[in-house]
Amino acid sequence: MTHSPTPQPVRAGIVVTGTEVLTGRVSDANGPWLAEQLRTLGVDVGRIVVVGDRPDDLESALRYLLADHRLVITTGGLGPTADDLTAEVVARVQGRPVRLDESLERRVAARVEELNRRRERQPAPEVVAAGVRKQAMVPEQAAVLEPVGTAPGLVVTAVGDAAAPVLVLPGPPGELRPMWEDALRDRAVLGAIEGAGALRQGTLRAYGPPESELAALLRDHEAAHGSLESAGLEVTTCLREGELEVVTRYRPDAQTAYERLVETLHDGFGAALYSRDGASVDQTVAALFREAGATVATAESCTAGLLAGRLADVPGSSAYLLGGFVTYANEAKTAEVGVPADLIERVGAVSAEVAEAMARGARERLGTTYGIGITGVAGPGGGTADKPVGLVHVCLAHEDGRTWPLRLQLGGGRAGVRQRTVVACLHLLREVLTTG
Amino acid sequence: MTHSPTPQPVRAGIVVTGTEVLTGRVSDANGPWLAEQLRTLGVDVGRIVVVGDRPDDLESALRYLLADHRLVITTGGLGPTADDLTAEVVARVQGRPVRLDESLERRVAARVEELNRRRERQPAPEVVAAGVRKQAMVPEQAAVLEPVGTAPGLVVTAVGDAAAPVLVLPGPPGELRPMWEDALRDRAVLGAIEGAGALRQGTLRAYGPPESELAALLRDHEAAHGSLESAGLEVTTCLREGELEVVTRYRPDAQTAYERLVETLHDGFGAALYSRDGASVDQTVAALFREAGATVATAESCTAGLLAGRLADVPGSSAYLLGGFVTYANEAKTAEVGVPADLIERVGAVSAEVAEAMARGARERLGTTYGIGITGVAGPGGGTADKPVGLVHVCLAHEDGRTWPLRLQLGGGRAGVRQRTVVACLHLLREVLTTG
Repeated sequence: MTHSPTPQPVRAGIVVTGTEVLTGRVSDANGPWLAEQLRTLGVDVGRIVVVGDRPDDLESALRYLLADHRLVITTGGLGPTADDLTAEVVARVQGRPVRLDESLERRVAARVEELNRRRERQPAPEVVAAGVRKQAMVPEQAAVLEPVGTAPGLVVTAVGDAAAPVLVLPGPPGELRPMWEDALRDRAVLGAIEGAGALRQGTLRAYGPPESELAALLRDHEAAHGSLESAGLEVTTCLREGELEVVTRYRPDAQTAYERLVETLHDGFGAALYSRDGASVDQTVAALFREAGATVATAESCTAGLLAGRLADVPGSSAYLLGGFVTYANEAKTAEVGVPADLIERVGAVSAEVAEAMARGARERLGTTYGIGITGVAGPGGGTADKPVGLVHVCLAHEDGRTWPLRLQLGGGRAGVRQRTVVACLHLLREVLTTG
Repeated sequence: MTHSPTPQPVRAGIVVTGTEVLTGRVSDANGPWLAEQLRTLGVDVGRIVVVGDRPDDLESALRYLLADHRLVITTGGLGPTADDLTAEVVARVQGRPVRLDESLERRVAARVEELNRRRERQPAPEVVAAGVRKQAMVPEQAAVLEPVGTAPGLVVTAVGDAAAPVLVLPGPPGELRPMWEDALRDRAVLGAIEGAGALRQGTLRAYGPPESELAALLRDHEAAHGSLESAGLEVTTCLREGELEVVTRYRPDAQTAYERLVETLHDGFGAALYSRDGASVDQTVAALFREAGATVATAESCTAGLLAGRLADVPGSSAYLLGGFVTYANEAKTAEVGVPADLIERVGAVSAEVAEAMARGARERLGTTYGIGITGVAGPGGGTADKPVGLVHVCLAHEDGRTWPLRLQLGGGRAGVRQRTVVACLHLLREVLTTG
């Protein structure tokens, strides 16, 4: 990534609380979501700190981020139990004593009662009362964001507005996201992000080229047109599952500079640059199927349904995904999609021939335009010298008899091999449906 | 979570680098994995800081964590391009100038050459050479961890060992994980975590009970046996996909106290406490299938292969998962597993009757012990007053004719409904295979 174009964007810091997140038993959805919301406002996320339920760590994280961010946002730790410490610690850091807000206490009590009514077993009344009271303890001068679940959000300014305000949000995404709208109406929050010019963002996706090729293209572009930074373009590139993603943020006045960059990458990558509007391969394939009015059936061995499952991630996929077959055992390959047992006997289950027979069989069974067959060695066991772990044969078959075979040799362990196979299949579908 | 039992455990801090992680385009797998590895060594993760590719933020994060951690680990930013800055910034923070390690340069060059040989397009030689040279720039006195991909890891101590050492690891999990073993043989790393008393960890899993019930059980337990903290038990609980996970860390001398806690939860939850050894429902179901010598076939509509794909996540699953059917369209339900078209016509595709017909049909097609059928409304569209989004009918059928129907009404959007359906199916399999 190149550095941010001047003027320096407004930056916010995020503190994610929760031992279950710190230890990785739960993956945090709030940091990324907030980063995305902030970006659309032209606010950069500077740093995210993940802390457990220890008050000292939370306090240290708050002071660390308050030092050089205009706004600090916390998520989680607002529950009714004693180890939910966020409001208390934020109040201390901002120099605000906490007081019971009795009207808030009544509103929280009403929500808790409503929630408990749905439960089979009722928690003890004194436990409920203690929890409600705790959730209604509010730092002086803090703005209260009305609870979506049972926990109120808070905007806590520092005494004398010395430091940045802290926006305190609950951990459950279903509570945090609606509350975000309220937070953006708060005077202190608005003041903190004031002056952030909304940025435009463009996303390009390419499949195939190595990262080094992208780096070379960017160098050539800078040689010809001056540095990206001076042009007001902030480019972030990342490679995953064989896909190159290029995200560019820029102020509206850099629109033409951005379009020039897109041209450079378009000329350099050619068809490998498959998405100029940020559409994912999943969305692209879905659109291509709809345009073509084509249908597909899958026959999966090593991926065992992951491709069909991924195709069905897209709402409305029933328009082109009629069905599929998980032919995990050799007998299933024969019974479900009619792969001749003697063919498997002769060339082995992991072979181009069997992949093609699976593709044709699946297509014929469901009468679809396309059939796709996948057979491979996901590992960890089952590899041989000539058919090592990571070898996958894919075949796409069209009703007119044409076939597109694909031989993959993948790494990344069992999960990696299966996931990358699915991605490779999506791109095979994309390429064939495009050039068809 | 209760606070850690004294004595205070040795703590390590983690810096995750990468704008793609900070902005949430990629979710970080390394922080959680490292936290898990460290925990087994009795080392706590104090805080995790996520930074983008800005050198100032990386430097600030390093200084912040070095202040109160015995070891700091960085992940990512070791690539060949100019924006991969980790080694350089760590060297500056630790007061070590970087020097070219010519022998390392040759070894990296060899690996890069090998990788490029597999590529269709070859990057320009001068680009490759520049990248290799960059990756071979090593801070003075640093220990080099041999590259798994092309990036070497580093252990960088501070001048005069003033501060904690920084362990520098690459971002790709496939490179980071094998390198971790080498890191644990490094003198400086071992010195940093010395004195960490290895903690035992026990994980319990329950399916069904609400979190409040767990809280109540823990309160009763503390009332009867004294606080968990005083007993030397650090309990972390979390709820996800309807599963309650209870992780307890304790020193060996608290073994009996832990076993007492397990008894309390066992008595309180009964059969809902399905895992006393931390085994996941996936592992549990796999073991039950092996013990029973039973086999299964799936027929999936709204999940479209996700259950079969999840069953196949477990290595060796081919012993019991013979295959499955993705019967997404109604015609596919009829063509693949013989659901009578008039039945679908009469009761609708999302119905207990069709789920049962799918289960029986899948089982008969592949001659398995069990068949499982899934049909539901994943949404966002397709819901009606009597069959709303989130309604899912599941049926498990045995070759002896018995069936176990399950009606679910789930939230969480299209993805949530499909994922929770898969989890519910795994638990249905677990319960039936257990009680049989």
